[in-house]
Amino acid sequence: MARAAYYEHNKTIRVGEAEARSPGPGEVQIKIAYVGICGTDLHIYHGRMDQRVAPSQIMGHELSGTISALGAGVTGFDVGQTVTVMPLDPCGHCPACRAGHSHICLNLKFLGIDTPGAFQTYWTVPAATVLPLPDTMSLRRGALVEPLAVACHDVRLGEVTQGEFAVVLGGGPIGTLVGLVAQHAGARVLVSEINPERVRIGRELGLDVINPRDVDLVDLVEQRTGGAGADVVFEVTSSAAGAEMMTALPRTRGRIVIVGIFSEPAAVDLHRVLWRELRMCGARVYEREDFERAIELAAGEALPLDQLVSAVHPLDHLDVALEQLAGGGDVMKVLIDVQQEGV
Amino acid sequence: MARAAYYEHNKTIRVGEAEARSPGPGEVQIKIAYVGICGTDLHIYHGRMDQRVAPSQIMGHELSGTISALGAGVTGFDVGQTVTVMPLDPCGHCPACRAGHSHICLNLKFLGIDTPGAFQTYWTVPAATVLPLPDTMSLRRGALVEPLAVACHDVRLGEVTQGEFAVVLGGGPIGTLVGLVAQHAGARVLVSEINPERVRIGRELGLDVINPRDVDLVDLVEQRTGGAGADVVFEVTSSAAGAEMMTALPRTRGRIVIVGIFSEPAAVDLHRVLWRELRMCGARVYEREDFERAIELAAGEALPLDQLVSAVHPLDHLDVALEQLAGGGDVMKVLIDVQQEGV
Repeated sequence: MARAAYYEHNKTIRVGEAEARSPGPGEVQIKIAYVGICGTDLHIYHGRMDQRVAPSQIMGHELSGTISALGAGVTGFDVGQTVTVMPLDPCGHCPACRAGHSHICLNLKFLGIDTPGAFQTYWTVPAATVLPLPDTMSLRRGALVEPLAVACHDVRLGEVTQGEFAVVLGGGPIGTLVGLVAQHAGARVLVSEINPERVRIGRELGLDVINPRDVDLVDLVEQRTGGAGADVVFEVTSSAAGAEMMTALPRTRGRIVIVGIFSEPAAVDLHRVLWRELRMCGARVYEREDFERAIELAAGEALPLDQLVSAVHPLDHLDVALEQLAGGGDVMKVLIDVQQEGV
Repeated sequence: MARAAYYEHNKTIRVGEAEARSPGPGEVQIKIAYVGICGTDLHIYHGRMDQRVAPSQIMGHELSGTISALGAGVTGFDVGQTVTVMPLDPCGHCPACRAGHSHICLNLKFLGIDTPGAFQTYWTVPAATVLPLPDTMSLRRGALVEPLAVACHDVRLGEVTQGEFAVVLGGGPIGTLVGLVAQHAGARVLVSEINPERVRIGRELGLDVINPRDVDLVDLVEQRTGGAGADVVFEVTSSAAGAEMMTALPRTRGRIVIVGIFSEPAAVDLHRVLWRELRMCGARVYEREDFERAIELAAGEALPLDQLVSAVHPLDHLDVALEQLAGGGDVMKVLIDVQQEGV
């Protein structure tokens, strides 16, 4: 029986029957295996995105699965093939799309937020959003490709190069992945995180993680860079403290990458931006090349991705998993195993 | 008799005798002709930079003059030659200097702020800061090279290209020069300025200037760009309103150049920076190539530079000129004619 987890309203998830919609022309139906929980899912769960998310919505956009059916005209895929989805549906005709920035289309539909998502047995999506996974990649790991693609995008737009000194403000799942990808790109990486449990996990994953409540981060970065400052700073905290710190750390003409989703304007030291000729950019979701790079990275063993997974729950326990994440963030990535029956 | 204008304390300028210091090895002595008044001079005059500027300081760093003496070992210059000065004295050994960013040296001495400046009959400076002016360039115009070099730096770092749509927030002397240089680079330029007199002057200079109190700037930019947004926005107001507007105007991946000197952190919509993947950079003073480009531009007739000058006062009236600028900004550039005796 096809099932789905429905977001009904603030802190209420209902798991019930779902339609296994047959794929129309140009569509692919995927039997979902694993789905990661994103910070955005948590925002939806807490009712903070009710203006955008219609009731009885199915969330979920970090997934792996196997193709269960192909719609008319779909070529290049096989039933049974393991896949993931790049969950962006751009309009194709707005100024952003015409400028080649379709990933940040002005009318972007994000699958699993603006349309039904992957917390269901069978998910039917446009074939253009489906990417094959290597046979050798576990389905668990396949569900990590989407957040890894975010990190690949951030590091690419941050122009991180071999030997540079990078600081990541915020060591949650995305910050940790940014740190790992930047380290893999040859940077010396320092992650700043206030949650002791996340500090511990980050260190286990091989990152240099400090707690800025224990250490003067500005002093430390000065020491580590011979007084120059960091080459690049990733702001992944979405906090006032992060917005303040991000301009204090870079060297002259150092870069700041805005990754965190700020809910309101933040105080930024524009004098420092001027004085050191800092360069700042926003980095949102990913482009196709970032997704392909993430699949390539996840297919290898260079990154300790499996260790990033703190827990795996059945679909029936999606609300338990969301509460676990909400309760202080003492976990990293939490996956839902959609194939597993509830206990 | 050599004379100088001394900043003594808040709103007090004393004009008196000065030493015509002979140039030491590697120095050049310049007989000063014209000196422009910069916003920074106004800040010093109002006592806002007393922590940095020692009492009895001679201000002035936008100048023209003729070489009156050469120190030992100085080659490539002739007495009587008309020159200007790039008033930066970097330390040469800090991380910024070593990285090739000596114009924003961490220990930068700015001539006329951190050392005595050009509001005096004879000014002796390091030969490395002196740049020849073409014989054909008037000395009045030569005094505009320094602020023009600022604008050249801003437009260069803003990566303005032919056919782009540029918005300049703030139509004072620097904003107006940024607008003129961007227009000369082939951009469609819109300047936003709230002072009606500066709106009028900007329009006379051939710029499209609007008053954002009369016009909805966001709507206007949307209309003019087919809903895309501006390619580049120059923030030259140093105001909360400018910091808010600068993120509302650019297209996806549009650029923001911070030119204004903010005295405190400003609220910035970092969500918009993320959402549109905006790119921001600070642009401070200039590099040698900007100064050379400014001399080249000032030597031609492409820019209506002479019309930028609202008034010329003798050195004795520096305080009058400063008060004129302080009184609401109903003027553009004000020059001091150091050669002219007081009236």
